[in-house]
Amino acid sequence: MRASVFIATSLDGFIARPDGGLDWLPGADGSSPTPSETGYDAFMATVDVVVMGRGTWDKVVEMGGWFYGDKPVRVLTSRSLELRPSVPKTVAAMSGTPAEVVAALAREGFRHAYVDGGKTIQAFLRAGLIQRLTLTRIPVLLGEGIPLFGNLPRDVKLKHLLTRVLGDAMVQSEYDVLAASA
Amino acid sequence: MRASVFIATSLDGFIARPDGGLDWLPGADGSSPTPSETGYDAFMATVDVVVMGRGTWDKVVEMGGWFYGDKPVRVLTSRSLELRPSVPKTVAAMSGTPAEVVAALAREGFRHAYVDGGKTIQAFLRAGLIQRLTLTRIPVLLGEGIPLFGNLPRDVKLKHLLTRVLGDAMVQSEYDVLAASA
Repeated sequence: MRASVFIATSLDGFIARPDGGLDWLPGADGSSPTPSETGYDAFMATVDVVVMGRGTWDKVVEMGGWFYGDKPVRVLTSRSLELRPSVPKTVAAMSGTPAEVVAALAREGFRHAYVDGGKTIQAFLRAGLIQRLTLTRIPVLLGEGIPLFGNLPRDVKLKHLLTRVLGDAMVQSEYDVLAASA
Repeated sequence: MRASVFIATSLDGFIARPDGGLDWLPGADGSSPTPSETGYDAFMATVDVVVMGRGTWDKVVEMGGWFYGDKPVRVLTSRSLELRPSVPKTVAAMSGTPAEVVAALAREGFRHAYVDGGKTIQAFLRAGLIQRLTLTRIPVLLGEGIPLFGNLPRDVKLKHLLTRVLGDAMVQSEYDVLAASA
């Protein structure tokens, strides 16, 4: 099973403000770019399961929108997941190490996971279980916040696949993760 | 006087390993890209003074190369600067806050400073004294190191000017710094 990241960061590498705030994202106010323009819709069409951490899940619930269509969503948590009636039946809790999660999803027949949320992305990267990264750089420096990347046991080399500029402002680059170098 | 940053970072935002190491930079071994291919030569041609912190200076001396041609280089340091005979006469020590440094350089008639080094870049950004950023993203995650960006008193909005891909691997983006938003 493959796993991919598709995420926006500030130019200084944050995916959210310290309190999780996303007000600095273009489109946070309903304006452009649309999920079609950012490639999010095309990316989602290639994915058959979404995996996210508990922190990100709580933020998704708080925000009230729904970004995952009818795709199965697995929330990595050791706590019980209270699912409000408004939450789609496609959502379920799950736990384990990244390797255990990938193995379990593969056994269920999933082929391409969308891994979301800072801590979860970092854990999967550390475990060498992300194959592709699509990063969209927003032209702002926040100075502090929740970082996309974290510690790694060793360098992770990437292969640049393509870069495009969205709306004359955002720079979106796609990378394949190459084998980690010792 | 204007001030610009022209620097390469890992995809996770580091300008050097924890010990200052730059072995992960393409070209560290003398191979491509050349300073002409990265736009460094063209950038340097627009600059009339180089400003760097003491830590970066010590690293430059240690590396033994010389990257600044005959441009005046000012090293920000409160300690004395021992200049070996091999160091060009264009190098001088200087101290003060970023605002004091910019004012002093302007009085000397300089018009465009190349600000280099992590701490110095961060201090100038915090003071709102950088007008342009050219960042080249190297396709590697280091996991730890000396970060390019640091804390800021407030968001710094940027205007994307252009992005180009170098050698099918490095993504170079140029930004104007817009007025800081409160």
